[in-house]
Amino acid sequence: MLQEKFLALGKVKNCMRELTAYGNARKTEIGAENVFDFSLGSPSAPVPKVVTQAMIDSLSLDTLHDRIPEEGLPSFRQAIAEELRCRYAMNVHADYIYIISGAAGGLAVCAKALLLPGEEVILFAPYFTEYPVFLEGANGVPVIVGPDEDFQPDLEAFRKAITEKTKFVLVNTPNNPSGVILSEHSLKEISAILQDAQVRFGHPIYLVSDEPYRELVYDCDRIPCVMNAYENTILCYSFSKSLSIPGERIGYLAVNTAMPDRDEVFTAIKGAALSLGYLGAPSIMQYTLTRCVGMTSDIAIYKRNRDMLYHSLTSLGFQCVKPEGAFYLFMKAPIPDAKEFSESAKKYELLLVPSDDFGISGYMRLAYCVPTETIERALPAFEKLAEEYGLR
Amino acid sequence: MLQEKFLALGKVKNCMRELTAYGNARKTEIGAENVFDFSLGSPSAPVPKVVTQAMIDSLSLDTLHDRIPEEGLPSFRQAIAEELRCRYAMNVHADYIYIISGAAGGLAVCAKALLLPGEEVILFAPYFTEYPVFLEGANGVPVIVGPDEDFQPDLEAFRKAITEKTKFVLVNTPNNPSGVILSEHSLKEISAILQDAQVRFGHPIYLVSDEPYRELVYDCDRIPCVMNAYENTILCYSFSKSLSIPGERIGYLAVNTAMPDRDEVFTAIKGAALSLGYLGAPSIMQYTLTRCVGMTSDIAIYKRNRDMLYHSLTSLGFQCVKPEGAFYLFMKAPIPDAKEFSESAKKYELLLVPSDDFGISGYMRLAYCVPTETIERALPAFEKLAEEYGLR
Repeated sequence: MLQEKFLALGKVKNCMRELTAYGNARKTEIGAENVFDFSLGSPSAPVPKVVTQAMIDSLSLDTLHDRIPEEGLPSFRQAIAEELRCRYAMNVHADYIYIISGAAGGLAVCAKALLLPGEEVILFAPYFTEYPVFLEGANGVPVIVGPDEDFQPDLEAFRKAITEKTKFVLVNTPNNPSGVILSEHSLKEISAILQDAQVRFGHPIYLVSDEPYRELVYDCDRIPCVMNAYENTILCYSFSKSLSIPGERIGYLAVNTAMPDRDEVFTAIKGAALSLGYLGAPSIMQYTLTRCVGMTSDIAIYKRNRDMLYHSLTSLGFQCVKPEGAFYLFMKAPIPDAKEFSESAKKYELLLVPSDDFGISGYMRLAYCVPTETIERALPAFEKLAEEYGLR
Repeated sequence: MLQEKFLALGKVKNCMRELTAYGNARKTEIGAENVFDFSLGSPSAPVPKVVTQAMIDSLSLDTLHDRIPEEGLPSFRQAIAEELRCRYAMNVHADYIYIISGAAGGLAVCAKALLLPGEEVILFAPYFTEYPVFLEGANGVPVIVGPDEDFQPDLEAFRKAITEKTKFVLVNTPNNPSGVILSEHSLKEISAILQDAQVRFGHPIYLVSDEPYRELVYDCDRIPCVMNAYENTILCYSFSKSLSIPGERIGYLAVNTAMPDRDEVFTAIKGAALSLGYLGAPSIMQYTLTRCVGMTSDIAIYKRNRDMLYHSLTSLGFQCVKPEGAFYLFMKAPIPDAKEFSESAKKYELLLVPSDDFGISGYMRLAYCVPTETIERALPAFEKLAEEYGLR
């Protein structure tokens, strides 16, 4: 008599969380320093001091805990718009920025606002495990398009996957789990394909860009800008990763001011948010982050980890996708069954997430947002694993 | 091509907010002290110092901003369960408490978890304006039952309103906008009627109790306990009103441990929350409020305001529902059209919300969570209003 799909969702234990739970139990058994847990994408760089100071300062505000407008604190929306315009030259304006509880909330609201039941959403594999869940909440139908050999979207498959029912396309750059940044070339092609499809089907197709790892890039200044490549773009952001505050659940949606129906889309976002019970994000975080927009925790830690892990694993004979951003390394399993390989790695206390829940088989995700010592200590274990599979 | 209902929702300006906006403009024109704004149910009692201190203390926690389990911080859930057991002898357990971003989020998640499309939800008028919005998000159908002469639910109408499609009943005690507390008698009768209907239709009918004003009571120790009157109850709570922190959007759902299918219902709540993008409430508030459960801001302020306003208005000849809790007074408009009366009151700078958006006509809601001086200064204006309508 209840919604079967929500019952199922509430019960589901995805591979990632099961592995994390296993790891925590194992750490109790044999000591945390002997478990090499690469399962969880939780930022390890310390929270910047400026966040804590801004929070302390905000405590003296008389109106700190008062209700603020649902779309967000005006000064916070303004600060975000300025940062996006200055750093990325994005087509944004404070009036089209909606502050929300985390990128998950943003995506769920976006799906609810844009989708009529049964409409399709194109996801590029590998994708974040929970994207299909947010679509489910809005009765959307996910359509999966795989990667090319460089882990960019397979453009030919993308072109063929678009139908009259395609309502939006979801991209994630830098990507969780592959660490790959959507290239200028991919973006240009995606934009051209979508523009052609819009003309062909006579209705807008939106591009939703999920960018929680936007600032976590190691070989370039900034990622190619999705919003400026295509008019009908909605940007989705979270401060969880860049400022190491995943517990605080705060982010925003930004509708491209070049979008012809920006007013309707922004209005539908407001309406969908209201109907899902989102009456604004917590005020203390909005006051605090107004002073921290554009800042990041010390991402040099992640770069050091990436360099060490990528170099070591490839030296050992493992085939890896070169991580350009976020804090994930995507490694090919030396056998077809990634789950079996994940089980096998546990023998050496290595916790690696099999890629099946990310919509692709045969890979392992290694979250390298761990203390650098963990990587150093894990190297002998990786060596044994490589030996077992005859890689060296 | 977008969801028409969300477009409409995003555009809607309810009477309450329009009046507040009008009031703010008017305050700029003629000075805040000359506008008697009773439009907004925003707590005016200062935030208890213990909240600020707990927040300051929490800043020294290393793990403060880390991701916490979606259902909430274990110590926070435990503290809530203990408070509800000790103070109200409720059938609750930490394992069946789900921390969520505000009561609005809780109600939206509840609706999503419980309702199959087209199922009915009984609302007792007068009801909080946004209840139908949360039901809309889950494709539920609101069925309205009016009040009796004491503003308790009309039990005979309630009995007749239940159909095979009734999935849950939503109560709100103390009530926004009437200030009335659901009586022991009403509760007992509602429970008996629902139990009879469950047998008749052969499936559970849930009772969702929205209690953000639970601690704001002035003539008794505590409200009659909804959860203990009926097994299939889900409690919905927010800390916004009791601790004067409406900006922080934090509350919880508690499933009655006496509910036969409590595990399924709790699982569906988790699944629905996930699909709506609720991945847990902000960690800093959970750590902070763990130390503040059961506390309230100084509600003596509201009692003083209630006494003064109720006494004055009835003395002037206005017919009022005696407010027992929350911070609202429900006054009968002396003419049938409450909107017209609201317009008329503006002449005297009195901002009173007409009851139409609360599902009932002919009444005015006065939010008395204002500085006591505002009430004192407003009395001559009420006197003129009473004279205009020949009440004295």
